[in-house]
Parts: sequence; C-alpha cells; structure tokens
Amino acid sequence: MTKILDGKVLAEKIKLELKAKTLELKKNKNITPGLALLLVGDNPASQVYVNMKAKTCENLGYFSIIKKLPKETQEYEVLNLINQWNNAENIHGILVQLPLPKHINEQKVIESILPKKDVDGFHPINVGKMLIGIPCLLPCTPAGIMELFKYYNVELNGKHAVVLGRSNIVGKPIAALMLQKNKYANATVTICHSNTKNLKEFTLEADILVVAMGNPEFIKSDMVKDGSVIIDVGTNRIDDPKLEKGYRLCGDVDYNDVFDKVSMITPSPGGVGPMTIAMLMNNTYKAAIGQYE
Amino acid sequence: MTKILDGKVLAEKIKLELKAKTLELKKNKNITPGLALLLVGDNPASQVYVNMKAKTCENLGYFSIIKKLPKETQEYEVLNLINQWNNAENIHGILVQLPLPKHINEQKVIESILPKKDVDGFHPINVGKMLIGIPCLLPCTPAGIMELFKYYNVELNGKHAVVLGRSNIVGKPIAALMLQKNKYANATVTICHSNTKNLKEFTLEADILVVAMGNPEFIKSDMVKDGSVIIDVGTNRIDDPKLEKGYRLCGDVDYNDVFDKVSMITPSPGGVGPMTIAMLMNNTYKAAIGQYE
Repeated sequence: MTKILDGKVLAEKIKLELKAKTLELKKNKNITPGLALLLVGDNPASQVYVNMKAKTCENLGYFSIIKKLPKETQEYEVLNLINQWNNAENIHGILVQLPLPKHINEQKVIESILPKKDVDGFHPINVGKMLIGIPCLLPCTPAGIMELFKYYNVELNGKHAVVLGRSNIVGKPIAALMLQKNKYANATVTICHSNTKNLKEFTLEADILVVAMGNPEFIKSDMVKDGSVIIDVGTNRIDDPKLEKGYRLCGDVDYNDVFDKVSMITPSPGGVGPMTIAMLMNNTYKAAIGQYE
Repeated sequence: MTKILDGKVLAEKIKLELKAKTLELKKNKNITPGLALLLVGDNPASQVYVNMKAKTCENLGYFSIIKKLPKETQEYEVLNLINQWNNAENIHGILVQLPLPKHINEQKVIESILPKKDVDGFHPINVGKMLIGIPCLLPCTPAGIMELFKYYNVELNGKHAVVLGRSNIVGKPIAALMLQKNKYANATVTICHSNTKNLKEFTLEADILVVAMGNPEFIKSDMVKDGSVIIDVGTNRIDDPKLEKGYRLCGDVDYNDVFDKVSMITPSPGGVGPMTIAMLMNNTYKAAIGQYE
C-alpha cells in the first residue's frame, strides 16, 4: 500500500499549532509575530503568492504588511525600505518576493536583510549555518520536506537520498539538511543536475528521491526503485484541452505511473507546496521569539 | 601510466607567483599582505602548523604576527584580540589555529572574525556564499583540491565525484565546490560518511574519489574504479618499528595497493597538504587586494 505524504494535512496542523502558540505569545509576552512582504513589479504569480502569504498571516493572528512597488523602482529604494523594516520592532520577518526586476541586484537585496529577520533563509549567513549544522532560519521548501519526513516517520539514517536539481532554493539546501549528522537526517546524499550523465542509474539507486527539476512528469516508474520514497517539489502547468480551464497542474514525477511501485509519495499539488508556506509562518514565529532550534 | 598529482610542485608554483605578485603590490600600491596567527594553548602539532604558516609568510614577503596565549586564556580575551586585528589596517587575514581549549566557544570566535579577513573560510557568511556560488574566501583544503584539478586538467564536468567524509573543513565544502555550475566543476556529487551503508558500492562508482576520513590506508584497490582519480586528504601517523623514528605518515588510501588501478592520485604526504598552506597564502593575498574571484 503506497502511503501519500499529505502536505496539506501537515501544513494545517502546523499552522493551527502556530496559531495557538501565537495566542500564548500575545498574552504572555505581548509579542505579535510580524511579517513584511515586498513585491516589486506586477508579475501575476508573485501577486498571488504575496497575497496568499499575507492572508495566512491574518489567519494565524500575525501582523503583516504588503508593500507593492512599481517595476521601475530603483535598487536604493528597495534597500531603504528593507533598512526601515530591519529597524522596525513590530517586523520580525522580511520577505522579498522573487524574482525582482533585472535592474535590481537580487543578491544585494537578500544580503541587506538582517539575518535574524531573513525568514526565507536565503541570506548567506543562514545558508552557511545550515551547511555547518548550526540552528538558523532555514529555507522554507527544504525545511518543509524535512518536516514531512519527521511527521511521516521517513527514516533517513543510512539511506541513500538522491536530489535532482541544484538550485539555491531547493536542491542544495535539501541535500545539506539530509546530510547532517542528527537523528532526523544522516543520509548518504547524491546531488544530480542538468549535467548529470545516466540520470536513471542514480534515480534507480535512490531510497529517497527528491525531485526539483521543473520538468513536468519527467520521472516515470522505470526510473524509481521499488519501495522508495518520492518527494516531488515540481509544480508545473501543462495544457489539457479536456479541462474547462485548458490546463492542469502536475509535478516533476508522473504520479500515477510511479504510484504502485513506491512506498511513499507526495502529491503535487498538495505535497511540498503547502508545507513551504507553513514553514514561512514557522520561521516568522521563530524570528519573533528569537529561537531557531 | 598512473599520473601523480603532485601537490608540492603545484604549491611551490603558486607560492612563487604570489611572491612575484606581492613584490608588485608593494611597489605599485604600497600594500604588504598581512596575516595574524593566534595560537591558544600548547598543542605541539598546532605550534608546528602556526610556525610553518608564519615561515611561509616570510618567504613570500608577507607581514605576519603570531600571538601565543596560554591555555587558560578566557574567551573574551580572544574576542578582544580578534577585534583589534579586525580593526588593524596592516592585518588582512586572521587565522585562529584550531582546536581551541574547550572552555572557548570555537564557533563564536570564528564568527567574530571579519568575513573579509576570514582566510580560513570558516565564517558562516563565507560558507554560505561558497554553497550559493558567490566569490568569497574559500576554505583552504577544498580550494587546494580544486586547484589540483585545474592544474592537472582533471575534468569534473558530468563526472561522478564521491566524497568520503562530511566535515565542515573538507567534506561538505569540497562537495559544494565540485557541484557548482561552472567549467571547473559541474560534477554529480555523492557525500558518504560514517553512517553510509555499503560504502564500497559508492566508491566503486566514483570517477573522482575524495577521501577525508582519517582512517589510515582504508581504501584498497578492490574499492576503487578502474581509471578513477583519487584525492587523498588523510594524513595519518602509523607505527612502523622498521623505521628509526618508529612511525610513518600515510593517507586514508593504500597508495601502493590502488596505484596501478587508478589514472591519477595524490600522494600523502605531498599531495593535498602542501596545497592547503598555498591556499592560505592565496587567501591572504586576495584579502589584501579585496578581490575573491
């Protein structure tokens, strides 16, 4: 029987816990977790994401503000705004929705965020601490995957985990987290990417396969090991004229094709995606209390 | 014919180039690269290392100072000294010889060094930049291995590189460097460690095998792939009553046993070791000119 690693259910559970802890925090310490969201330009997907994040804050009893700036905004204006938020006591987390317009240096903006308010976990100092193994604000998607492992008792210790993709947002950090010497990790880790030869030889060896390629339904049943655990990070939109809206969402894994062969799998949508936003809320809470364990 | 990746030769070449560039730097910009070395306690090996580093500075025309403090030194005294060096214009690199006595928080001391003077590349912000792929001061041993690859034209692109060991000083950073999307790296990377099961299955798949285990002559010919490239980071002392001094130095790889099977190999000693100190000198030079490319 294949087990579905349901990210929606776990994300709801985490958010309810955060909501309860936030009530306590307000009552006992008069602290309300605050998240500042910056959107530059009018990318429709980015607008949806930012609004969803603010809405989730509202549901959890967090304070949030959205600042929307036109796409012509200059880099120094963004840096000035972040500097204000860095100094604002009611703001514990700062999130700059990426991508930024091309004339703005994204890395410079990320590095301008105070590390303790970097709820996306993209600041080099947080990335470094993560690789070293020091408690810090972790990037949300990989942190969400680790929570799925914990909740569904996926044993990583001594297993071979294969990551497909080496992005700074998913591939590199999830590899770093699974590699650490602690009871929730401790896997042997292989990182594959666009330049990997004979990809199938690697995927077939994976006890745990984390797929973050951005390639719709690329992973088929002949590429996965019997009884393996599949984490599908991809969310792709593909044309489907049979549907009224003309498309459907799917992951990087051909879910139906691999389903019977594997022991556990995340659906996409409904797996890693909901966990990402729950982890953003978790990071904002951690930033508010100043503890990252 | 097995090719020996001679670290002594390459380290000498790099040091001569640095010596020449330092003459230029003094003449043209009146800058002398300066390295401050801190030794706390009386660990004999640490004393040898620190003295060797200072001696190399002298040979290259760098300025250097060694501060030796007793093992009872308090953490705040170390932090005060580093703060002085952080502010000293003639000091471009700061190196704290590890390990520190147990009552001093090593990570706190590392993080107190200005990232631009962190010539060991251990500060989390440099570790993070390394993983992200931003130019920065790189940890010396992994940087030295990458230089060996470049100099001896070891192609990593699309190859399977297997790292044995996940230390913050060698295993994790060399994996991060070999993984990056650039023309000197771009390998598929697997990281094995003390909890890896069936280690031999991984080593046999390695086109490039980087061994940093601290386990004398552990890797035998039946564990390596025909024609592979072997980087032996280990330096171990083992008893040898036949020798006058009573011991000999060896790597983690059984050099004579694997020699005929592999295409290239670093000796140990004489491979990675000399490169480490050359890279420390390179980092100090980079810190002096403020460019990390």
